[in-house]
Amino acid sequence: MTAHDELLTFLTTTLGPSGVLCDDVDIARYRIDWAGAQGGIPLAVARPATPEQVAEILGYCHRNDIPVVPQGGGSGLVEAALPDRDTPELVISLERLNGIRHVDPINFSMSVDAGCILQTIKDAAEAEDCFFPLTLGAQGSCQIGGNIATNAGGLNVLRYGMMRQLVLGVEVALPDGRLLCDMKALHKNNTGYDLKQLFIGAEGTLGIVTGAVIKLFPRPQVTRTALIGCPDVESVLKLYAQSRRSCCDLLSAFELIPRICLELAIEVAPDLPDPLDEGHPVYILMEVAASGPVNLDGMIEALFEIGIENGWINDGVLATSDHQAKQLWRIREAMLEGQQRRGEHLRTDVSLPLSALSEFHHRAQLSMEETSPECTVIAYGHVGDGNLHFNVLPPPTLEQEAKRSLLHELELQLFDIVAEFSGSISAEHGIGRAKQAPFLETLTAPEHEIMRGIKRQIDPRGMMSPGRILPATHD
Amino acid sequence: MTAHDELLTFLTTTLGPSGVLCDDVDIARYRIDWAGAQGGIPLAVARPATPEQVAEILGYCHRNDIPVVPQGGGSGLVEAALPDRDTPELVISLERLNGIRHVDPINFSMSVDAGCILQTIKDAAEAEDCFFPLTLGAQGSCQIGGNIATNAGGLNVLRYGMMRQLVLGVEVALPDGRLLCDMKALHKNNTGYDLKQLFIGAEGTLGIVTGAVIKLFPRPQVTRTALIGCPDVESVLKLYAQSRRSCCDLLSAFELIPRICLELAIEVAPDLPDPLDEGHPVYILMEVAASGPVNLDGMIEALFEIGIENGWINDGVLATSDHQAKQLWRIREAMLEGQQRRGEHLRTDVSLPLSALSEFHHRAQLSMEETSPECTVIAYGHVGDGNLHFNVLPPPTLEQEAKRSLLHELELQLFDIVAEFSGSISAEHGIGRAKQAPFLETLTAPEHEIMRGIKRQIDPRGMMSPGRILPATHD
Repeated sequence: MTAHDELLTFLTTTLGPSGVLCDDVDIARYRIDWAGAQGGIPLAVARPATPEQVAEILGYCHRNDIPVVPQGGGSGLVEAALPDRDTPELVISLERLNGIRHVDPINFSMSVDAGCILQTIKDAAEAEDCFFPLTLGAQGSCQIGGNIATNAGGLNVLRYGMMRQLVLGVEVALPDGRLLCDMKALHKNNTGYDLKQLFIGAEGTLGIVTGAVIKLFPRPQVTRTALIGCPDVESVLKLYAQSRRSCCDLLSAFELIPRICLELAIEVAPDLPDPLDEGHPVYILMEVAASGPVNLDGMIEALFEIGIENGWINDGVLATSDHQAKQLWRIREAMLEGQQRRGEHLRTDVSLPLSALSEFHHRAQLSMEETSPECTVIAYGHVGDGNLHFNVLPPPTLEQEAKRSLLHELELQLFDIVAEFSGSISAEHGIGRAKQAPFLETLTAPEHEIMRGIKRQIDPRGMMSPGRILPATHD
Repeated sequence: MTAHDELLTFLTTTLGPSGVLCDDVDIARYRIDWAGAQGGIPLAVARPATPEQVAEILGYCHRNDIPVVPQGGGSGLVEAALPDRDTPELVISLERLNGIRHVDPINFSMSVDAGCILQTIKDAAEAEDCFFPLTLGAQGSCQIGGNIATNAGGLNVLRYGMMRQLVLGVEVALPDGRLLCDMKALHKNNTGYDLKQLFIGAEGTLGIVTGAVIKLFPRPQVTRTALIGCPDVESVLKLYAQSRRSCCDLLSAFELIPRICLELAIEVAPDLPDPLDEGHPVYILMEVAASGPVNLDGMIEALFEIGIENGWINDGVLATSDHQAKQLWRIREAMLEGQQRRGEHLRTDVSLPLSALSEFHHRAQLSMEETSPECTVIAYGHVGDGNLHFNVLPPPTLEQEAKRSLLHELELQLFDIVAEFSGSISAEHGIGRAKQAPFLETLTAPEHEIMRGIKRQIDPRGMMSPGRILPATHD
């Protein structure tokens, strides 16, 4: 028997026939991701149904030097979960380990399997009059284990934090085949090094999250959405600081949408009304939510007054119905589709101190336009977190090769400016393979050594998602 | 020259004469902590004034196998910062590295030196109409570096999180003498393993925090304080769940105070009025705060109505003036003093899932009283976080030796019950030396191995706060 045959026999024995996929057709969907990137042909796709099975597979692979890559819902954007194109890997999909273990509305917590779909979790929370705040475009398909492995962000970070802030406990299958179980539903626990922090955001390079205890919140009873037209990014930032004050920490979203994005949205959905009478350079899509009786309308109207008085707001509309609020949010969704339709473009996910964001935006836009006068900058995003998706559409006439090379050049240029302003080249998407090169360049020697040391210690044979975040060690 | 002389020469050359203390009288205050514990005689007390000096001292000690222990404000409760009683250590006090580097009210962040006093930071935030939420009894003397090293908790955790959630960046002097600088003022940053998480809560065993970027919030403009009498702990927990909903995430404190604590407070401060007409088994001291115009009184009155209707509230008072609010908070302070006056007692800092807290409380009280019928249980604390200071006053007539042995027995008994309910033996105080034995017992093999591995990797010679959290490796 070859090593590959032995692996298949082991998997079939351990997981049963439905737990292993080998057929080209069956495995096709594990080779592509949300962004359309294509991975290599894996050794097989294992579909364990219990945490113990995940651990058992890892132990086998560890002993036999078989590289593995865990996979959640496939909505990652940095190729961390795609099977390697050169060295065949075993894909471990968490999709069958997808139950909700326990909802505790008194403790405001829930324990779940890693393969549980985010939307399922949000629904289960709501059924107990609670709220799980992580909100992403991919929430109907992404899995909580992937959210934890990537320290996911999304729309509500400014109020509730990133995934890291929402995790109380984790259960992790370690590369050597043991289970590390830290599933206490505690809001405070200061006993030794907080090991769960290592696995959150490690993109599967230190083990596979198999379960978690997550935090819940009171379910919002009232939500208000507004679209605000502003003269420039500088005003937007002043408005944000005022909003945090006026809205008393009840602000749940604060999204920057430049005029061009509104136009892209209307291209895709021509029935979408241009919500304000005139066009404005930038817009803010703002949401405020409360779990009890608060006069949110009064709060937002008072904010509008201050904003107009100070010249930060040109005009604004407060949705008066759920339907109207949904229409405003449709702009946010449709603009992404509109962007997609324009074909290959530079997509980034940078973050800056908010106080530097306006100048950064100005400098970066100038720099892009200097290099390529016909390119179109589309900078939108979670501006309340200092997080900009600073994207660039290349001139439409450019041929493929020239386009790729231009986009690469623009990216390097942009990352240089990010560094000048002490920003991050990856606010929420992570590193994976796609951003490894620029990431490694920003690391200082002690950071690099400590990261490598942690990897070596927890995964000494380098079989866990090799080549993601850090270069592979087994090559 | 002896090794000790060489060290003193090195320190004097590096820090100047005022940067080194050796005299018995001068070093006395570095040998005791808040709880009155007494440490050994250190090799010297070094008082560096820059991050680079801290790093330089660590490098020297690393090369010369000299154990070091960093010290903040000395308000730790687990003997982590006290100099060892057997092996003389070099104390590194951060007290001269105490500046505020930069306040950024637009980015809601501040960068500070590690030795900066917490109250100084809170004042600097307020001067910019911002708020730094960490609130502790020791805030007038504790240092932010110590708060970070211990992942401090306190009164406002239920709304703002523990110290870990309030840190955006750290600067750390590593045991080998290099500076790790991760001082970006970013609210989101997903680039590789989040190394700062290792140093937060490590109690100085992995390096010395020399600076940090911390998060700020809008300054509350309106604050309301209420004292509520409740029939039992079960009702308190139901009231808490309702409060989170009714008060819309604006709840900033929710403290459990049993009747006995009110009596202890009045013992110390006889002028304190018993705030409600009758006595009640347990009280809640509650605070709600908002940074903008919200009708907090209406919110709390509505909560009172629901609470009374459901039998969770017997009676309550909402402070109508700042003076009255302060009087209510004085109960919280005076009761600690009253407890102190009763002499040596069992002090714990446990946490439980809130849904288990009432049964835990009941079981633990019974168990204590079974072992020592004349003991007095005083269980109070941050009940909104599931955090109880479950303390026990021994029978007053007991002689010293018997008292110590009883308290030790009660502690073991209590920790067993904590384990049964999947709780933590240290919610916020940490491990240090004082809780090492029971802590090590709760660790699983993989947890223990990973913690030891991290320690070995970052501090291979074991010179950084040896014997705290984990047993010393250089012995």
